[in-house]
Amino acid sequence: MSLNSFGHLFRVTTWGESHGPALGATVDGCPPGVAVDAALLQHWLDMRKPGQNRYTTQRQEPDQVEILSGVFEGKTTGTPVQLMIRNTDQRSKDYSEIAEKFRPGHADITYWQKYGIRDYRGGGRSSARETAARVAAGGLARAALGALAPEVEIKGYMVQMGPHRIDREAFDWDQIDQNPFWVPDAKAAEDWATYLDGLRKSGNSVGAVVEVVARGVPAGLGAPIYGKLDTDLAAAMMSINAVKGVEIGEGMGAAELTGEANADEIFMGNDGKPVYSSNHAGGILGGISTGQDVVVRFAVKPTSSILKPRQTITKSGEAAEIITKGRHDPCVGIRAVPVGEAMMACVILDHLLLHRGQIGDAGGRIG
Amino acid sequence: MSLNSFGHLFRVTTWGESHGPALGATVDGCPPGVAVDAALLQHWLDMRKPGQNRYTTQRQEPDQVEILSGVFEGKTTGTPVQLMIRNTDQRSKDYSEIAEKFRPGHADITYWQKYGIRDYRGGGRSSARETAARVAAGGLARAALGALAPEVEIKGYMVQMGPHRIDREAFDWDQIDQNPFWVPDAKAAEDWATYLDGLRKSGNSVGAVVEVVARGVPAGLGAPIYGKLDTDLAAAMMSINAVKGVEIGEGMGAAELTGEANADEIFMGNDGKPVYSSNHAGGILGGISTGQDVVVRFAVKPTSSILKPRQTITKSGEAAEIITKGRHDPCVGIRAVPVGEAMMACVILDHLLLHRGQIGDAGGRIG
Amino acid sequence: MSLNSFGHLFRVTTWGESHGPALGATVDGCPPGVAVDAALLQHWLDMRKPGQNRYTTQRQEPDQVEILSGVFEGKTTGTPVQLMIRNTDQRSKDYSEIAEKFRPGHADITYWQKYGIRDYRGGGRSSARETAARVAAGGLARAALGALAPEVEIKGYMVQMGPHRIDREAFDWDQIDQNPFWVPDAKAAEDWATYLDGLRKSGNSVGAVVEVVARGVPAGLGAPIYGKLDTDLAAAMMSINAVKGVEIGEGMGAAELTGEANADEIFMGNDGKPVYSSNHAGGILGGISTGQDVVVRFAVKPTSSILKPRQTITKSGEAAEIITKGRHDPCVGIRAVPVGEAMMACVILDHLLLHRGQIGDAGGRIG
Amino acid sequence: MSLNSFGHLFRVTTWGESHGPALGATVDGCPPGVAVDAALLQHWLDMRKPGQNRYTTQRQEPDQVEILSGVFEGKTTGTPVQLMIRNTDQRSKDYSEIAEKFRPGHADITYWQKYGIRDYRGGGRSSARETAARVAAGGLARAALGALAPEVEIKGYMVQMGPHRIDREAFDWDQIDQNPFWVPDAKAAEDWATYLDGLRKSGNSVGAVVEVVARGVPAGLGAPIYGKLDTDLAAAMMSINAVKGVEIGEGMGAAELTGEANADEIFMGNDGKPVYSSNHAGGILGGISTGQDVVVRFAVKPTSSILKPRQTITKSGEAAEIITKGRHDPCVGIRAVPVGEAMMACVILDHLLLHRGQIGDAGGRIG
Repeated sequence: MSLNSFGHLFRVTTWGESHGPALGATVDGCPPGVAVDAALLQHWLDMRKPGQNRYTTQRQEPDQVEILSGVFEGKTTGTPVQLMIRNTDQRSKDYSEIAEKFRPGHADITYWQKYGIRDYRGGGRSSARETAARVAAGGLARAALGALAPEVEIKGYMVQMGPHRIDREAFDWDQIDQNPFWVPDAKAAEDWATYLDGLRKSGNSVGAVVEVVARGVPAGLGAPIYGKLDTDLAAAMMSINAVKGVEIGEGMGAAELTGEANADEIFMGNDGKPVYSSNHAGGILGGISTGQDVVVRFAVKPTSSILKPRQTITKSGEAAEIITKGRHDPCVGIRAVPVGEAMMACVILDHLLLHRGQIGDAGGRIG
Repeated sequence: MSLNSFGHLFRVTTWGESHGPALGATVDGCPPGVAVDAALLQHWLDMRKPGQNRYTTQRQEPDQVEILSGVFEGKTTGTPVQLMIRNTDQRSKDYSEIAEKFRPGHADITYWQKYGIRDYRGGGRSSARETAARVAAGGLARAALGALAPEVEIKGYMVQMGPHRIDREAFDWDQIDQNPFWVPDAKAAEDWATYLDGLRKSGNSVGAVVEVVARGVPAGLGAPIYGKLDTDLAAAMMSINAVKGVEIGEGMGAAELTGEANADEIFMGNDGKPVYSSNHAGGILGGISTGQDVVVRFAVKPTSSILKPRQTITKSGEAAEIITKGRHDPCVGIRAVPVGEAMMACVILDHLLLHRGQIGDAGGRIG
Repeated sequence: MSLNSFGHLFRVTTWGESHGPALGATVDGCPPGVAVDAALLQHWLDMRKPGQNRYTTQRQEPDQVEILSGVFEGKTTGTPVQLMIRNTDQRSKDYSEIAEKFRPGHADITYWQKYGIRDYRGGGRSSARETAARVAAGGLARAALGALAPEVEIKGYMVQMGPHRIDREAFDWDQIDQNPFWVPDAKAAEDWATYLDGLRKSGNSVGAVVEVVARGVPAGLGAPIYGKLDTDLAAAMMSINAVKGVEIGEGMGAAELTGEANADEIFMGNDGKPVYSSNHAGGILGGISTGQDVVVRFAVKPTSSILKPRQTITKSGEAAEIITKGRHDPCVGIRAVPVGEAMMACVILDHLLLHRGQIGDAGGRIG
Repeated sequence: MSLNSFGHLFRVTTWGESHGPALGATVDGCPPGVAVDAALLQHWLDMRKPGQNRYTTQRQEPDQVEILSGVFEGKTTGTPVQLMIRNTDQRSKDYSEIAEKFRPGHADITYWQKYGIRDYRGGGRSSARETAARVAAGGLARAALGALAPEVEIKGYMVQMGPHRIDREAFDWDQIDQNPFWVPDAKAAEDWATYLDGLRKSGNSVGAVVEVVARGVPAGLGAPIYGKLDTDLAAAMMSINAVKGVEIGEGMGAAELTGEANADEIFMGNDGKPVYSSNHAGGILGGISTGQDVVVRFAVKPTSSILKPRQTITKSGEAAEIITKGRHDPCVGIRAVPVGEAMMACVILDHLLLHRGQIGDAGGRIG
């Protein structure tokens, strides 16, 4: 019932604030015998790490993960894995200006209204730094998936930045790792660079849409109602800072389709498994995976810490104008890509464990 | 950890299938002393009930709710409330045709692959009949909210059917209860009737977008990370059958905004509470309610049970063509309106209880 | 987080009061494909049913269980199973005398202090009638165990009534079902009958100790810390009405042993599995099953509804004397035997599912 | 659903092994605004710390706790509190002898059978070092109770060591902190010292019974069934390493009482609250606190790591004799006293938060 946990059997609880000594993830329920070490997790953390290029915050954090428990002689033991990341570049002074004022569009004011605490140092628990812990946990989930279901592959990428969308016709998987935006479209990468440079210089920021795909997910994961695979994916993605919308498959666009257009027709594949004429469903029917690609998208709102002056109030209720200096992301959606991947990995692994817990291996056989 | 439950302190577990003897909701954690009776819950159930007009399934179900426990002398006792609804019009023969074939776009095939069970009678647990139980539980949540936070008002309505969207300029609250589509726009109601008649006659179906607003929600409900109010709302809405996308405030559209445009500016209200220049955030900042209207939208895909022939396979793996006769909704999104309201009521009440559990009454005071 | 649920993956939520229309159990997470019907569950309910002989309450309740969901064509579907039992003999007038007075040693006063509700009709939710729902759920758990781990056998029996303990030397399994006390000792059965007749006639009641054994539980179920098999067994037994103590293996007596005496020595069995020289551990070491018999005992306090006059107060705070007429058990421990068995079945099944969820089948191999 | 967590709203997840780099507790749900710092928690940890006198293990661990999150400017923020304790004296070589052999009466063998992992270094996750994390979390719970319910006082002490029980007539609260056994009886303290010296020298160990009392707990905490206050206390105590039995009030002795003897009579106190003639119930009736002292006892079995030779097997199934050198507690029950207090504090706080979550402040008023 913890408000800082997610997952059922593979259960991740994150802790830590932007400017405390450390943050991390306590991961319970990982299967034993999974080969993992800090270097393997670091690979994923380095993707999310700030200061990688001019399009992300210039805060310098090595985001070095330490495994404090749950791994012995290079393998998970089945007991809780503690993943800790020290904060090293906590320039609290950057935030002194905003200690009394609430940033419009930011958690500052609601945090204060709820807890009566004003952790002005980088947003406290609301900071996107928390996502580093998720990425570490996601790395562990990937390692476990690698052992249990090696055919599962997870990949995230941006499909929209501000008004600019990718050209689906030009989709190129190999481009994703070749540009700072994880965008599967070389032309878009160039255009977006120009666009974001302009925004950054003007002290503004912009939103984005990230898509995450999981291939090779076996049919049968999930449940018909509250334990739907898409329910947990929606919660997982919406729990990421700044996310305001989540879509599975056709998503909001499903509203425009007729039943005839939306129904992915079913055929028998050569390998004795069903194949589908299309994937409007995003790999999930009735809450349960079909075996097709699981496709999730989420929208990330623009960073609220901007140089544009905005009207606000102070803790004592005075009107004030605010400009947020400091080191911020002009498009925080970029760094949300590895975070979305991590959440996908955690949810897929969790449902794999749930499935074998309740059902074991035998499902309905077709043909 | 139940896969058929939602909520933390106000915890609802639904049970039952489309064609079993009954279905219902076991509601745990309701505050004691809430005045409630079956008639009060029936009011909400009647909104969702099938066969109300020609735009919904012609299955005749009175959806009469019985309170079997947890209420004594007209008040909740604080112990589990069992809400049971008998199924009365289970014409299983309607489904005989599809016992061996999987409907494209329906849970038929994944249910079979997961459980090895083919409950062909109306989709078993995947049937939208399950939502009757939610509406009953939502009625109880509304009654509790009425006692604890009477200023909270919850209202749902359709904003899109297929390609047709409402005209936001013409938004009229008073229209919502005046037409079969719960649409806040008299002109749209007329146009949609024509459009849906056409679809229905051609044996097709269409998707929709439903918006649900909660007014009067106090500031401070929710939590910064996995216990975010929007996380739970996203999960609640995505858990409804056929939902493929969920948005809070600007939703997917937040991707197109700049930080400057998105930041709802803050001012001091005459009543000593903050007021905002706009509500892009949909009433939630950093996972915590602001005191503004909480605004959620979700997309419902078109019913997959249609008269249009589609290609599919049988349980034994043979290719087949399928047409689904029977009594189905041409736009199941219509009946999702009271369901979305119910989920909103449950989530708001749950977070109200969580808030007073952890925090008590004292929040941060402004001014 | 429901306060009326237990279990992790096999999750049981009970509902209902002593004198409401019905009570039951909502069971979520049952594996699909388990053969079960009402008659099979009724077998266990009949063991617990009141009015079987002169040593239990004379309330006449057939305790007929109905399966309202989750079973299709004689097999569980993997979705929630609703088990409902109608109350038929609710003579509320029996309780009119105590509507204003609190029975000493009973939940009457604390229930009132907590909820502000006085459900005088037989104790409302505190009534031992709730255990009928557990027995029904336990019957389902047994059926699932029968399919998944048919070597598991569960048996409960009384080992103490008031000051009278069984003679462990004379322990006879075959006696258990031959007497109204489920006592494995023919001589004790006779003596206890005389003893209890005396108590009953004098309007008094007495406590008891019940022991429940599970044989054939595979090694490896449980977890080292909070998810210990004994933690869940302790909670399960303590959650039964009137239970005041729980022991695993040596239980409280472990305090008197030296390390040398307590250590069950380990040898290699002919079947390649470890065997032990003794079972002080009660089949659980470090929270995890050893493969030996799992042995749990619990003490049930005497019924507080007695004919002996006791001092008490009324709701308005007046001093009063109370005598509880009505139909009560002189030794409620007798009917706790099938309840203890049911809880054991639920806990063992739950941990079996948890184990295969996290670990799958491969454990450490010895030899 | 985490197997390494306990608590509902005040939720503690512990992590770490005996010989890893660190261990700790992730505490979620603590109310905000509680004054706490490391020194305050250290007070309780120092009570449990090894090497305090000749009756506990000579392992030298400062057990220095660090607060890594959730506290800002000396107060809890309402977000997760991470409490970390570094391991410093991990002499793994002490354990080399037992890397291949299983200690009888120890988790060695079941851990191996479950996880296929043999963390021979001091028992890995099964080590009683885990309890340091609980004591730290308990210190935080005490601080929160100090703010919310300052009248609550929690005190633990030993009442039995091996065959020696305290003289209840000579009970002296002031003695508890004056001797190495936390025993409320000066004469017993002397006798036990002699007894334990003898055992220690012979390389043996012995069990114990610990009693923990919570005074000043308000009436109304708990729930009638699975959420019973005594259910959670039983689980909390049974989850401590080496505990084999748990009692509330009369405990197992309740079996010997008649209803007349057991019923604590009720009178009206001068302060308008009920008073009771006795406390057989241990402060809990029907799962809900009465306002009397909450009294829990638990039995701790003797340490299995002893110098007496015992028969066992190796991982490869060979017969072997084992003697456990190393640094062990001759009576681990001594150090269980502060652990039992910590668990009591956590459970009481958790139920206080649950109560105000569901009920708010208004309970049933008497008089």
